[in-house]
Amino acid sequence: MSAPEIDRLIELLAKLPGLGPRSARRVALHLIKRPAQLMTPLADAMASAARAISTCRICGNVDTSDPCRICTHPERDVSLICVVEDVADLWAIERTGVFRGRYHVLGGTLSALDGVNPEDLNIGKLVARAGETEVQEVILATNATVAGQTTAHYIMERLASSGVKVSRLAHGVPVGGELDYLDDGTLTAAMKSRRTL
Amino acid sequence: MSAPEIDRLIELLAKLPGLGPRSARRVALHLIKRPAQLMTPLADAMASAARAISTCRICGNVDTSDPCRICTHPERDVSLICVVEDVADLWAIERTGVFRGRYHVLGGTLSALDGVNPEDLNIGKLVARAGETEVQEVILATNATVAGQTTAHYIMERLASSGVKVSRLAHGVPVGGELDYLDDGTLTAAMKSRRTL
Repeated sequence: MSAPEIDRLIELLAKLPGLGPRSARRVALHLIKRPAQLMTPLADAMASAARAISTCRICGNVDTSDPCRICTHPERDVSLICVVEDVADLWAIERTGVFRGRYHVLGGTLSALDGVNPEDLNIGKLVARAGETEVQEVILATNATVAGQTTAHYIMERLASSGVKVSRLAHGVPVGGELDYLDDGTLTAAMKSRRTL
Repeated sequence: MSAPEIDRLIELLAKLPGLGPRSARRVALHLIKRPAQLMTPLADAMASAARAISTCRICGNVDTSDPCRICTHPERDVSLICVVEDVADLWAIERTGVFRGRYHVLGGTLSALDGVNPEDLNIGKLVARAGETEVQEVILATNATVAGQTTAHYIMERLASSGVKVSRLAHGVPVGGELDYLDDGTLTAAMKSRRTL
């Protein structure tokens, strides 16, 4: 009995991550009640993002320019490449402001189960970049999951012949974390990497 | 460092119910990775919904026609009006297919705390509709919350002089519900309204 425009909207919203049929209906209704304040601006924002955004040919980041503004930024350190699984991880590191080098976005992790092989990831370009004379260190910032660590290990082997320095993020107790709730692996790593004060 | 189009998209997505900053970023990235398959269709769906949808002058439903298609449907029973708080509740009842009358959407509940008075809700029109000769029964289907029940009680008093029959949804054990997990109020109501088999 509801309008086809509403059904179509709900159907598309339900495809977004974290939204099921029920929350898609709730979001649709929220939008419908605020056509001028929210629905039209959001439609415009999506349309303009869809037009403007492309993938950086160098690092795989998404931006309105290609190469992206991180790759072309004159003050970013060209000697450091931070390898991340996904653009979301790049954003997370950028939010900390701690890293002033460049990135390389893999686009996922190796997975025999899901049939993701090295050639499905953005690894070839990384090996080529690591071979450039100005690059001195590749920081592997894949997730600390089995898939992320497997992928990091594979990349490390691929880069071994290039002579570039390869590092990875430190394991340890999260800031604000309680030891009692921490898994054994993290605690073991934190103990082994303990620092003298 | 990310594009203003992306920031704008995330900012608007974070205003949707159930989405915080983190999930808004996740949704934005999901959309950015699928511009042609998802982001552009969703933008179009929102724009066309924003253009097409209006609020029914009779019942307060949202639809592409005003009056809405439920109010103008020749086979819907004009003698029954089901009063709901919100369009989402109307959709929920429509999904069951059990009700073939018409609706009246209040647009909320009375709330002294939030300063919602009877004149802020769609109650005046309901009283006028209930006075029409063809209307025989008003079913109060507000939520079984304190606010919903207060609102139902207020409407019942407002309709007392009109001579129309007023009913409300039954309380009881939800289908599939376990007694052990049920609150005392529901269990008491279910016991009092027990039916002879």
